[in-house]
Amino acid sequence: MYRPLDVDTVIDYVRSHPRAKDHLDTTGELEAVEVGDGNLNLVFKVFDRSSNRSLLIKQALPYVRVAGPSWPMPAERAGFEARALDVEHRCAPGLVPEPYWFDEQLMLNAMENLVDHRVIRFPMMEAKRYRDLGVTIGDFLARTLYATSDFALDAAEKRSMMRGFFNVELCRITEDLVFTEPYLRDAPRNRWNPRIDADVADFQADEELKAEAAKLKYRFMTSAEALIHGDLHTGSIMANDHDIRVIDPEFAFFGPMGFDVGAFIGNLFLSGASHEIHSPDPDARRSYRRYLLDEAIATWTTFEAGFRQRLTDVSSPSWSSVGFQEAFIASVLRDTAGFAGAKMLRRIVGFAHVADLDSIEDLDDRARAERIAIRIGRTLVRQHGKVGSFDDVVAIAAAQLEVRDG
Amino acid sequence: MYRPLDVDTVIDYVRSHPRAKDHLDTTGELEAVEVGDGNLNLVFKVFDRSSNRSLLIKQALPYVRVAGPSWPMPAERAGFEARALDVEHRCAPGLVPEPYWFDEQLMLNAMENLVDHRVIRFPMMEAKRYRDLGVTIGDFLARTLYATSDFALDAAEKRSMMRGFFNVELCRITEDLVFTEPYLRDAPRNRWNPRIDADVADFQADEELKAEAAKLKYRFMTSAEALIHGDLHTGSIMANDHDIRVIDPEFAFFGPMGFDVGAFIGNLFLSGASHEIHSPDPDARRSYRRYLLDEAIATWTTFEAGFRQRLTDVSSPSWSSVGFQEAFIASVLRDTAGFAGAKMLRRIVGFAHVADLDSIEDLDDRARAERIAIRIGRTLVRQHGKVGSFDDVVAIAAAQLEVRDG
Repeated sequence: MYRPLDVDTVIDYVRSHPRAKDHLDTTGELEAVEVGDGNLNLVFKVFDRSSNRSLLIKQALPYVRVAGPSWPMPAERAGFEARALDVEHRCAPGLVPEPYWFDEQLMLNAMENLVDHRVIRFPMMEAKRYRDLGVTIGDFLARTLYATSDFALDAAEKRSMMRGFFNVELCRITEDLVFTEPYLRDAPRNRWNPRIDADVADFQADEELKAEAAKLKYRFMTSAEALIHGDLHTGSIMANDHDIRVIDPEFAFFGPMGFDVGAFIGNLFLSGASHEIHSPDPDARRSYRRYLLDEAIATWTTFEAGFRQRLTDVSSPSWSSVGFQEAFIASVLRDTAGFAGAKMLRRIVGFAHVADLDSIEDLDDRARAERIAIRIGRTLVRQHGKVGSFDDVVAIAAAQLEVRDG
Repeated sequence: MYRPLDVDTVIDYVRSHPRAKDHLDTTGELEAVEVGDGNLNLVFKVFDRSSNRSLLIKQALPYVRVAGPSWPMPAERAGFEARALDVEHRCAPGLVPEPYWFDEQLMLNAMENLVDHRVIRFPMMEAKRYRDLGVTIGDFLARTLYATSDFALDAAEKRSMMRGFFNVELCRITEDLVFTEPYLRDAPRNRWNPRIDADVADFQADEELKAEAAKLKYRFMTSAEALIHGDLHTGSIMANDHDIRVIDPEFAFFGPMGFDVGAFIGNLFLSGASHEIHSPDPDARRSYRRYLLDEAIATWTTFEAGFRQRLTDVSSPSWSSVGFQEAFIASVLRDTAGFAGAKMLRRIVGFAHVADLDSIEDLDDRARAERIAIRIGRTLVRQHGKVGSFDDVVAIAAAQLEVRDG
């Protein structure tokens, strides 16, 4: 029977689970803390003090945690996370937490506890630099997206995998919150800083922007290219100084590859916009923004190179055509640009915001940073169909972030 | 237990089926004939002579009928046909045979017997004209493709419907025979008229053509826009002088809408090419080709107008954007052009040919017609990404079919 765990019952659960003893001493003294800071789930870290080992238990609640039981959300999403984490772990070992087990009754996943890793969004607000961040995420993207695409899988394998990822409820959240509501004047869940009322009214009246956003929504809904993470922002990445992991794939489904690449890059740009305030010193600001753009470039470059490298091994002669491969990469790039922009805009106007911006208490200051993000996001969405190289994406961001080469 | 029926056992089967009595007098004198002329199935017409009523039984064999048991093909395809026919009947009543029942054990579908209809491919070789052919097929396309798209269905309804259409084996036939093998010099199933060896060698060396064909294959495999018929050629349409029906949706799956539109239009152009020989009189030839082009235009025009009309009712504000709708129609048009071309080329170089051309006994004559079709198909595939209006498609065909306005 499903029941939400707490810091006491999670210990009983771990003690009694036959697979827990592979990861800690279940007969010893166990201690649990609840650390969930996301929107949806309970997250427990369970420590075994005697052997200094631990594991993590992530349990889905049957409603949206931030909203309460009035916004139900099927706990079955834990199953999507389990299946996606398993695929990611196979394709990109070492880049995700190691999955231990999935409990279908309690809708929880037990996995490796990342002991001293932090969600990177918050340190990045203090200008933290992670070595090889873009290279690591680019590598993760190339590995997972290639391995679950029609280039690597036989049609039967891909269709059979797709059956496990009809993630309707979580896709609906993205469709509504990312692609629909931010562009509507009267969507009740929208919220924004009152100081940017005029900017929001302006962009919600931009018919070209709305048309491009609708094209992106249609691609999100109809383009089953690969198993995508589906929510790859800087709150879904944990790191310490020498290790970077992608977490929380509960939004995973077969969608357009550029959605993952764009989500991450858009969040780098959001961070860059927020440093308008977080880094008052102009040199420090310019330097951190240069770092962020370099990581965006490294992400795309590593993803593209890794994907092209893998494409040299394809078995179907259709995919070896050079002309096809160029067109394919160009299409993922256009999607990347558009989805990056859409993911930026929804964080300012839609229901779910980011701490990078919302942590800026002075509303006028926040508005300054938000306007930078809106300009980047809006240009990316409007121009995404015309982007011909990643330089174009960088130029759009750099123009607003006042970063020039050198 | 599955067993293939014959003209005797099919009568016993019909007599004993509880739902047969709604359609004929099962206690009377029944007569059955086997009329299957397709590649895959047994087709029985069962008549009740006393009441002059009848029904049709279509049973899937567990192998490809034209190839024999050495080429196995899961009989489960009858289930895809049953589900697709049911959807088509709901969306476009009167444009498909009325489905009566599906027998999962015997992998057969019982349906309305179209008494005096003929598959239109053969009469068209004799320059038969069907009134409103393009209008009817365009209407069928607008109805079925809209009703099963994200414009009409809620995301959950669409995903739930998709679960019934993972038609892996029949999609694989299309992927291999339409998009892959015709472009390979050494695919063992390819066959062609030896008189066009040089033409085939030339197009199989055309790297731009191969790149465009690979793009179309990728769209076929990843673009889940709507439940498409999947095999809508002139052999999948039956008609008499006042009624037109689409049959045989066993290839149905969620794919790109332009594949259906293109399949039909490509087959009109194939017919046009074949009249290079079938209509030796220049005036008669020009007149019939003009008819075929007019029907192609009516198909697109009716489809586009019907789809646009339905789009005015969409509930999601994303899809009401005029800019989005224009881009969407333009994308279906490009797909239509490309898929039309690909479906033409595969009928000349690939495994499965069409009677329009193969019935031309003199190999030099046949080569003349085939070269016309190759030129149209090749141009459509190469240029499909640049097609901006249906006039462009018509111009490509008309240039080779020597049809000018007026």
